[in-house]
Amino acid sequence: MHLDLSVPATELTRAVVDIPSESGAEAVLADAVEEALAGLGGLRVDRDGDAVVARTDLGRATRVLLAGHLDTVPIADNLPSRVVGGRLYGCGTSDMQAGVAVMLRLAAVFATSAGSGLAHDVTWVFYDNEEVDAVRNGLRRLVANHRDWLDADLALLLEPTAGEIEAGCQGTLRVVVTVPGHRAHSARAWLGENAIHRAAPLLERLGSYRTRTVVIDGCTYREGLNAVRISGGVAGNIIPDACEVVVNYRFAPDRDVSQALDHVRETLDGFTLELADSADGALPGLTAPAAAAFVQAVGRKPVAKYGWTDVARFAALGIPALNYGPGDPNLAHTRDEYVEIERIDAAEDVLHRYLATEK
Amino acid sequence: MHLDLSVPATELTRAVVDIPSESGAEAVLADAVEEALAGLGGLRVDRDGDAVVARTDLGRATRVLLAGHLDTVPIADNLPSRVVGGRLYGCGTSDMQAGVAVMLRLAAVFATSAGSGLAHDVTWVFYDNEEVDAVRNGLRRLVANHRDWLDADLALLLEPTAGEIEAGCQGTLRVVVTVPGHRAHSARAWLGENAIHRAAPLLERLGSYRTRTVVIDGCTYREGLNAVRISGGVAGNIIPDACEVVVNYRFAPDRDVSQALDHVRETLDGFTLELADSADGALPGLTAPAAAAFVQAVGRKPVAKYGWTDVARFAALGIPALNYGPGDPNLAHTRDEYVEIERIDAAEDVLHRYLATEK
Repeated sequence: MHLDLSVPATELTRAVVDIPSESGAEAVLADAVEEALAGLGGLRVDRDGDAVVARTDLGRATRVLLAGHLDTVPIADNLPSRVVGGRLYGCGTSDMQAGVAVMLRLAAVFATSAGSGLAHDVTWVFYDNEEVDAVRNGLRRLVANHRDWLDADLALLLEPTAGEIEAGCQGTLRVVVTVPGHRAHSARAWLGENAIHRAAPLLERLGSYRTRTVVIDGCTYREGLNAVRISGGVAGNIIPDACEVVVNYRFAPDRDVSQALDHVRETLDGFTLELADSADGALPGLTAPAAAAFVQAVGRKPVAKYGWTDVARFAALGIPALNYGPGDPNLAHTRDEYVEIERIDAAEDVLHRYLATEK
Repeated sequence: MHLDLSVPATELTRAVVDIPSESGAEAVLADAVEEALAGLGGLRVDRDGDAVVARTDLGRATRVLLAGHLDTVPIADNLPSRVVGGRLYGCGTSDMQAGVAVMLRLAAVFATSAGSGLAHDVTWVFYDNEEVDAVRNGLRRLVANHRDWLDADLALLLEPTAGEIEAGCQGTLRVVVTVPGHRAHSARAWLGENAIHRAAPLLERLGSYRTRTVVIDGCTYREGLNAVRISGGVAGNIIPDACEVVVNYRFAPDRDVSQALDHVRETLDGFTLELADSADGALPGLTAPAAAAFVQAVGRKPVAKYGWTDVARFAALGIPALNYGPGDPNLAHTRDEYVEIERIDAAEDVLHRYLATEK
């Protein structure tokens, strides 16, 4: 499979989308990306599994990293891509092959000038398995195997943001709250203690919880504390002796996991809980000079990112990171996924302006 | 397999217990019971599936029906039976092969006098599949196929009651309450409505529900309204759009299912619910002359039966019915199931005294 990087971004997006690359099956696309980048000349191209990393080495004072995942969610009868009106439809168009295509276009454009037009050194990171369990995530693997490939002053993830700058991300943790009871036949309920009934004050407390809103670098992070699963019951004639509630806390990045867990313990005081999983958030990092310059290039006020994204991996490495991409986050993972064609071109323009010496 | 009905009740219980007869596999035991009863002479013996019904036809003014199921719950490495101290251990000893043996002993004893010692005509009903889904219940099948075999003025079920008279039984119904919500990503919880949180007032209402206590014919029925199952949740990062709670109402037999359902609807007003299953209870029926005479013969104050039992099937036919048997209800279905040997003899004595002309 060959990718021609000289075509316009929309056409290139189509070509990328039409190479199926569900998580775990990115090899064909990764090969095509690696071959196309190597063919440009002037870039050092490295490979780790199905991740491809390309870098300039121009000795610039700053390095900007552009990152995008090659994998898509499972194809839902929505390939090959098709253009309808001003939209390109198909699996991965929005999340995030349009971003991948913009990254490839920028590599091609600057390579033709042997990088002379670049204000920064640039690193391109294409990686696998973002849409599945974190343990398989290709960026996580790169951090472990080749931390040095990822050095940068600013990382931009071309995840779908509809052309907005989404800064930082909230952290997340899940706890399992166990409410005990005492089993009995339901015909003699007074001999037991109903664990499901005893969960009422827990749910009431969650329902009336007042969420925090935190403003950092002008970005507003709105938290959430929610039961995301409940289960209890033994049989239709048994007073249940246990009820389990999984609670998800999405917290602003001014707290780390440990502080967030303390807050949950305090809020759910009196209940027994255990931490099931967690991930730190990422501060917006907009005060870093490279980030501030990018915000100026885009010309739009950054907004907070609510979901957890791979920007947190860069934040954990001490690299400010932002999400900025042409796709629409609300269309990600839907059968009717599409990307507005004009947003692809706009993203390429913005990034070109930001990376180029002539502003 | 042959059953010798001339041996003492304890020995006969052992013989019955040692013929494995899990629900659906009662044929060997049913064959043995049928053959033994037919061998006594003087009884009309009928068969329907693995149910065996034997009757005297002496022209007495009243007819007493003794009923017991032949099946046991699954054997739990607790066969063959063994005697330790004054107890007979083994699967089904308590629930209810000791009762079956007492029934068989009474048939043998009165048959030797060609029924001349009987104050009442007597019907013996042995049936299959009591320990499984109601739709398979052998007594239910007999009601449908041979209603006339079951005619009686009083029915006594020899289910385990530890020698007490348990009168009538409570009714039971289950409703499924559905609490709706609105799905959203948990990182943007304010776009959704959490169905699990919205179940809090339902659980609170159930937890603070004040149960009714109803006294009928001197028997106290204590009701119960309980959540027996709860489930909700889509994924660890989704605000759930539904939470389902199964509520079980155990109600005194002064209410029928329809009245009981009205009460549940009223109590859970504001919530959407659907009836999942139900069974009417049975009034104690202690004012019927044959029942009053039995209470006098036993010499103990009847108590209410809380769980639903097959007495309700007789009650539905207009036949007063009581539970009275040698087993211990608290040991039913346990691996360490046993029956106190002296209770077997006591039950035979009481029933002999009640059925005999000489009081």
